[in-house]
Amino acid sequence: MKVAEVDETGIQPFVESLSRCPKHGLHNPFKDPERYLLFGDISAKAAHMLSLPKVADFFTRLIQRVAPKSYQQAFGEVYVTQKFLENFSGDQVRFLARSFGVPGNHLGQQSHGFRWPYGPVAIITPFNFPLEIPVLQLMGALYMGNKPVLKVDSKVSLVMEQMTRLLHYCGLPVEDVDFINSDGKTMNKLLLEANPRMTLFTGSSRVADKLAVDLKGRIKLEDAGFDWKILGPDVQEEDYVAWVCDQDAYACSGQKCSAQSILFMHENWSKSSLISKLKDLAERRKLEDLTIGPVLTFTTEAILEHMNKLLQIPGSKLLFGGERLKNHSIPPVYGAIKPTAIYVPVEELLKDNNYDLVTKEIFGPFQVVTEYSKEQLPLVLDALERMHTHLTAAVVSNDLHFLQEVLGKSVNGTTYAGLRARTTGAPQNHWFGPAGDPRGAGIGTPEAIKLVWSCHREIIYDFGPVPRQWEIPPST
Amino acid sequence: MKVAEVDETGIQPFVESLSRCPKHGLHNPFKDPERYLLFGDISAKAAHMLSLPKVADFFTRLIQRVAPKSYQQAFGEVYVTQKFLENFSGDQVRFLARSFGVPGNHLGQQSHGFRWPYGPVAIITPFNFPLEIPVLQLMGALYMGNKPVLKVDSKVSLVMEQMTRLLHYCGLPVEDVDFINSDGKTMNKLLLEANPRMTLFTGSSRVADKLAVDLKGRIKLEDAGFDWKILGPDVQEEDYVAWVCDQDAYACSGQKCSAQSILFMHENWSKSSLISKLKDLAERRKLEDLTIGPVLTFTTEAILEHMNKLLQIPGSKLLFGGERLKNHSIPPVYGAIKPTAIYVPVEELLKDNNYDLVTKEIFGPFQVVTEYSKEQLPLVLDALERMHTHLTAAVVSNDLHFLQEVLGKSVNGTTYAGLRARTTGAPQNHWFGPAGDPRGAGIGTPEAIKLVWSCHREIIYDFGPVPRQWEIPPST
Amino acid sequence: MKVAEVDETGIQPFVESLSRCPKHGLHNPFKDPERYLLFGDISAKAAHMLSLPKVADFFTRLIQRVAPKSYQQAFGEVYVTQKFLENFSGDQVRFLARSFGVPGNHLGQQSHGFRWPYGPVAIITPFNFPLEIPVLQLMGALYMGNKPVLKVDSKVSLVMEQMTRLLHYCGLPVEDVDFINSDGKTMNKLLLEANPRMTLFTGSSRVADKLAVDLKGRIKLEDAGFDWKILGPDVQEEDYVAWVCDQDAYACSGQKCSAQSILFMHENWSKSSLISKLKDLAERRKLEDLTIGPVLTFTTEAILEHMNKLLQIPGSKLLFGGERLKNHSIPPVYGAIKPTAIYVPVEELLKDNNYDLVTKEIFGPFQVVTEYSKEQLPLVLDALERMHTHLTAAVVSNDLHFLQEVLGKSVNGTTYAGLRARTTGAPQNHWFGPAGDPRGAGIGTPEAIKLVWSCHREIIYDFGPVPRQWEIPPST
Amino acid sequence: MKVAEVDETGIQPFVESLSRCPKHGLHNPFKDPERYLLFGDISAKAAHMLSLPKVADFFTRLIQRVAPKSYQQAFGEVYVTQKFLENFSGDQVRFLARSFGVPGNHLGQQSHGFRWPYGPVAIITPFNFPLEIPVLQLMGALYMGNKPVLKVDSKVSLVMEQMTRLLHYCGLPVEDVDFINSDGKTMNKLLLEANPRMTLFTGSSRVADKLAVDLKGRIKLEDAGFDWKILGPDVQEEDYVAWVCDQDAYACSGQKCSAQSILFMHENWSKSSLISKLKDLAERRKLEDLTIGPVLTFTTEAILEHMNKLLQIPGSKLLFGGERLKNHSIPPVYGAIKPTAIYVPVEELLKDNNYDLVTKEIFGPFQVVTEYSKEQLPLVLDALERMHTHLTAAVVSNDLHFLQEVLGKSVNGTTYAGLRARTTGAPQNHWFGPAGDPRGAGIGTPEAIKLVWSCHREIIYDFGPVPRQWEIPPST
Repeated sequence: MKVAEVDETGIQPFVESLSRCPKHGLHNPFKDPERYLLFGDISAKAAHMLSLPKVADFFTRLIQRVAPKSYQQAFGEVYVTQKFLENFSGDQVRFLARSFGVPGNHLGQQSHGFRWPYGPVAIITPFNFPLEIPVLQLMGALYMGNKPVLKVDSKVSLVMEQMTRLLHYCGLPVEDVDFINSDGKTMNKLLLEANPRMTLFTGSSRVADKLAVDLKGRIKLEDAGFDWKILGPDVQEEDYVAWVCDQDAYACSGQKCSAQSILFMHENWSKSSLISKLKDLAERRKLEDLTIGPVLTFTTEAILEHMNKLLQIPGSKLLFGGERLKNHSIPPVYGAIKPTAIYVPVEELLKDNNYDLVTKEIFGPFQVVTEYSKEQLPLVLDALERMHTHLTAAVVSNDLHFLQEVLGKSVNGTTYAGLRARTTGAPQNHWFGPAGDPRGAGIGTPEAIKLVWSCHREIIYDFGPVPRQWEIPPST
Repeated sequence: MKVAEVDETGIQPFVESLSRCPKHGLHNPFKDPERYLLFGDISAKAAHMLSLPKVADFFTRLIQRVAPKSYQQAFGEVYVTQKFLENFSGDQVRFLARSFGVPGNHLGQQSHGFRWPYGPVAIITPFNFPLEIPVLQLMGALYMGNKPVLKVDSKVSLVMEQMTRLLHYCGLPVEDVDFINSDGKTMNKLLLEANPRMTLFTGSSRVADKLAVDLKGRIKLEDAGFDWKILGPDVQEEDYVAWVCDQDAYACSGQKCSAQSILFMHENWSKSSLISKLKDLAERRKLEDLTIGPVLTFTTEAILEHMNKLLQIPGSKLLFGGERLKNHSIPPVYGAIKPTAIYVPVEELLKDNNYDLVTKEIFGPFQVVTEYSKEQLPLVLDALERMHTHLTAAVVSNDLHFLQEVLGKSVNGTTYAGLRARTTGAPQNHWFGPAGDPRGAGIGTPEAIKLVWSCHREIIYDFGPVPRQWEIPPST
Repeated sequence: MKVAEVDETGIQPFVESLSRCPKHGLHNPFKDPERYLLFGDISAKAAHMLSLPKVADFFTRLIQRVAPKSYQQAFGEVYVTQKFLENFSGDQVRFLARSFGVPGNHLGQQSHGFRWPYGPVAIITPFNFPLEIPVLQLMGALYMGNKPVLKVDSKVSLVMEQMTRLLHYCGLPVEDVDFINSDGKTMNKLLLEANPRMTLFTGSSRVADKLAVDLKGRIKLEDAGFDWKILGPDVQEEDYVAWVCDQDAYACSGQKCSAQSILFMHENWSKSSLISKLKDLAERRKLEDLTIGPVLTFTTEAILEHMNKLLQIPGSKLLFGGERLKNHSIPPVYGAIKPTAIYVPVEELLKDNNYDLVTKEIFGPFQVVTEYSKEQLPLVLDALERMHTHLTAAVVSNDLHFLQEVLGKSVNGTTYAGLRARTTGAPQNHWFGPAGDPRGAGIGTPEAIKLVWSCHREIIYDFGPVPRQWEIPPST
Repeated sequence: MKVAEVDETGIQPFVESLSRCPKHGLHNPFKDPERYLLFGDISAKAAHMLSLPKVADFFTRLIQRVAPKSYQQAFGEVYVTQKFLENFSGDQVRFLARSFGVPGNHLGQQSHGFRWPYGPVAIITPFNFPLEIPVLQLMGALYMGNKPVLKVDSKVSLVMEQMTRLLHYCGLPVEDVDFINSDGKTMNKLLLEANPRMTLFTGSSRVADKLAVDLKGRIKLEDAGFDWKILGPDVQEEDYVAWVCDQDAYACSGQKCSAQSILFMHENWSKSSLISKLKDLAERRKLEDLTIGPVLTFTTEAILEHMNKLLQIPGSKLLFGGERLKNHSIPPVYGAIKPTAIYVPVEELLKDNNYDLVTKEIFGPFQVVTEYSKEQLPLVLDALERMHTHLTAAVVSNDLHFLQEVLGKSVNGTTYAGLRARTTGAPQNHWFGPAGDPRGAGIGTPEAIKLVWSCHREIIYDFGPVPRQWEIPPST
């Protein structure tokens, strides 16, 4: 497949289209409120379309065509997207614009807090969720009254191109969304020229930081995560926990922003069969059904090199994996490696000269495993504190005092807690996003949409009357 | 009075103190929750102290000592601060940390959204509100569990130094807040070294943009505003409207971020006695009681030069003022000018070569006045759209269709609407802050505190049990 | 058509079925939470079914078969029902069960407020909205976890019988709802024996008060309304206002609980062509298309007798109507009368011996019209205050001071205000229900569902730990 | 001390005073909104007064003068009242009147949901909390705009009489509250004649049910509770749990509505030293410091008779207590008995002929204790389900699956869960009230105030404009 990318000479129409949208947006509570209902209708219709087996299957296979994931994982995107659209059917879009009011100081005065659009906005989304991330952010932007220009990673933008057509079919006005295929440099130029009031970026921390500077902070970010899981002192349901660990680390070949990058095991778990179960589960994965597949952002060499550096840390060892995939036609620009786990002792991990290496995110089927004793919990908490991004996390324990110790001393934006805790699998029904950063975005829920795609506007009515005996007071 | 400023060699203790606060803050719902109650107590006590006449008078006069405003205006700060503290007495601080929960997909699962602190944070506030702005932002930061370093403009930081002592007396632990006097360059260095998770800046747009870049967008801003007022077609209560206009433009010598910088009059008002009333009111102001006083950021020469440039626009004219203050000892580094209004025709204002000049904010007793006919309303709306910052605004009219036209096509964060609309005088009971910018801060209300001083953290409990017949499913 | 009604000997299975549901309901946040998702699915599917033209047409005609209303009015019920179901698609049912949490006094303590079901409940709905009222209340009850027994007026219960089958088709478990056809006496017996925890009654005030006593107040009521409309001093858009008045008074032959029963005209309106326009519009109505039709609860004689009593009041007069319908086959147990308006002077209306007569609700195409001068507004407000039920109302004016005077001195639960104000036509997107009565129910919105179908339950987690040095304190 | 009670001939002034208050209340968002601020001021001032040691001591001793409780318990009332008043200082009263708005169907339409007062209301409170219950309910009623008549049990009304004077001193207008001393019969007559729109009753179930009928359900109730505690399978912190059990059962001589009436122990606890610890703690209580004291609603004979009936149940036995207090001057109309616990086997408890006897509430220092095995948990849950009132409860366990089983299958309105769970000691910061009953009231929190003292009113603005090409459509 080929994608026609717009280059820097072609951005003018996009700049102009965006500039035509005023800062008060395409709609707001005082302008064209019938558009809230329009988007309720579009959502209900599009949700119904995605609920039809042949449409769902079409998009699932289309995702698989461009992103290396199993049918089930690809279908997951379609399903979450459908449920999201159901959530904003009927009047639910206008309910997002719910305001509040408070009595004023005197008769005729009331203050009201509204959710106001930004007007012209931009959305940039990555390769790993070709449907779910762009649809959820795009619709959120539209619901609140913004006009977005959308750029999806060109490798996978075909999916969203098709979805946009479906949305048009369901009633989306064609002039409401601009869709661009381009490289990052061109998009950067477009942003600088069109000057959108808000840009949502999902992707790497490196690009995120550059955009933050270029756009002087007018951004919301969902960037990388070196996501952690802690197994607490209470060992139970080993099969279940092992299966969740395997999925968290290796589903989609570890290329979810929420993928488990490091596993802290309480020593009680080390004594269990967990690691051997993890190994068995990892070895079930195979290229044929894409339960393991190509890594798009690291080559095989790069991953192996990183692995070898880790293995030089005293006490570290290969738990399983660590080998190239065989019998495949994956191009060498991509990575192709078996699901891999490296053990590193927790006290080594924390050393200044090891920490950055051990906590480097490898966006692939690769995790670090370590072990801690009861006395070493403060070391573990210290390791969490020193990380740079705080997306997902899991505390696998039903021990309430253990849970509150870890939860109270960590900050990850989406943290699962309890025996069935996972790091991946975020649906549309709860918030997903980083915490601890004022630039942090969220995705999916009403709260996320309101935070990312609207701002507070206070309108204070002060209608009078002026009190009868009022006279001009002295100046102050 | 002299202020001992810390220079670049002295920042290390501040960097270290800030670094000692972890990202999960001094308290959160899972850590030291009794601190929420502590701050409820501190607030109740401090509010009571400020309600005592001698304490209120002390702070009022202290403000007057350093900031050029009348007793009434200075007392306004003390009063708003007291009411703010009352608002967060008792359990109201913990109510700020209110979370929400939603049933999950299966037994034992529930998702919860929390407001989480940032941990180490910084607050930078300007000269014009020496008490109100720093107290409201400082307490908001503390309430949510952050540890702030506070820098108030050194010219006025004495007020906050005294207030901090009062807070200590009311129970604030001394290690909870670091207070620094320094110049901007030193503070910039401190920020880069200490790397606070969030910085609240109130001040000029120029510094705001620099900070946004330096801190890679980890900021909330309340910057300048070229605040506008529109008088609608329905002329009524001329005395009242004239008085509000005078206060909005000239109280505190125009040195409020919410001061009226431009007045759009419907032609029906031009036919009224409004302008002559404005002139009379402006001329009441006198240096003795500080109803007019020094301008801290523009010299007299600079203001007069700006005025003369405006007067070169065809059709423009001086309505009143435009002269130096007499018989004063204001140092020449400050400005000293009578309350001034310049008329500029609306069609000239919109011309590309005039627009930037006319809409340049003069932080002093200086406003532009213009006039529009019914047909020219779109020009007025266009003028609003082209402005760069969107803080306060007022639409003086009880004509509902006129109001909804202007409200629906503008974005100012704090917009007053109705016959009694003003641009200044924001209290603690409603939101005050800019809109249309994802970096925008708010001040005072529960919503503002939550937005500026906390982020969303989602914790999903998933305690199980694992279903009885559960078996390991295939990998995906 | 015939309906098989259950008599008193047949209620035992209903009593037993209801008793099997525990007080904690069929689901709650700690029990079978997957049922929240089930109802999201049922709602999405049923909404889609009702959006299909042939299904919508089927129900529209079915409604017309049993209730005397035009196609458009009957279709209105289907449309509102569809939109309501869309509103609770996907995750929106579980979002209704949203709880909140607040930090406690010490580590390990948090208090949470939940919405809890009542368990076994009853729903009794009237003849005039055979689909909309029962579906909205039934689904609300189910969403929150209750098990309802539903009784619709037997004259029209066929509609709901068919709708229940559609809901079963869309996934509703058959054991979740009991559907009964019976007379009121039998239903009363069932309620006393089965003792539902909550009963929602929509219908006459007389029955409502009896039920309130029989069930010792364990009820929510939506009873009759003598709904009023006030035309303010600002006369404009006469055609529009006249059309709304005609629809409010005479659509569905005045048999909506929200129908306009009395019209207070400012004298400025009396001088306009309003009354003659109302007359013309009333005379357009015809039996063929059911824009006028049978009255189910008053005979023609009873209405005419009431009219004649009114006409004996000094100064009163017939404005239009007041005659029997001709050429019809409406059975004499029903009423058949032309749209009628009677003028009564406002000062007569308020006299003690007239007030009860004039404000007697005639559930048919019948309204009282009166007129007031500026000075007489207090009389009008006094008339409103003395009414017994406070369902809908309208204040037709864009004069803000007039609006706030009337709104601030009245209590109707659903009050429309502004030039386009109406009394009828309540949709699913805003609250509909009486105010001023703690027994008052609401219908349709998330707020209404939560109020009527759930109660507050506070669960305070207090997990500890117990402080280390804790020792047993003295008794208190 | 003597109390002058109003008899039936004296109620007319109260009836008239109440009738003068209109249904729209003394204030609402459109009427006298400055009263919201007035009550914020009154609350701040009264909270400060109660924080003064001499004032707190005065009220503590005054409570002790009339109600049999220890200094600590009496002071608890004063403290909770003070904190409640702090919570509604400043702007927090107007924040209770917060409304919400939603965009409408077309330009100029917005729907708003308000909290509306009832106007004239009544409050009836019992002897056991002479200060806390009446102040919290009275202020809640006032905050929302109602005019209450307040009747406190004459035995203790002196406390509230003094508190009312304090409130007057802090700014409460004297005409805002009517205070009556009378017997129940007179109050009943007053209610029937004055016809308050809402009556809050706190007291016995018997009176509650009578009032519900007399007032046709226009009531909110906080009635008796046969409050239970379950000790789960995880035995830990025995001293702590024993101490909490002792306080829950016997503090205030068991005369809290939240007092522990029955204790279900898991068999693991029976094997512990719990019962012997309970016995020791009970025996510490002594008349001198009122840690045990007179029972106001049962005579000694009545309690002993009830005890003897319980002891006739096979397998039941006296655990401790069961004797008269000695060396006292408590009048024989009151009860005087040592803290008592009776063991009844769980399978006997559930038998139809025992259940009502065992679960009869004795409002005194008296509890039933029983034991269950893991397999008997369903019996325990069945016992809970069959109770009639559902006020407080406690599940003492940190076993998450156990907790969710019990929480999901019970309904008590205020349920504590976890190792430190209690049944008594409800503060002002979380909801306290029964669940499972649509008549149920709550006390203290913003949610409780809004539920009990206001109703929903929806105002839909529909200002237009009417669309330009609009023409009168056909009738429907």
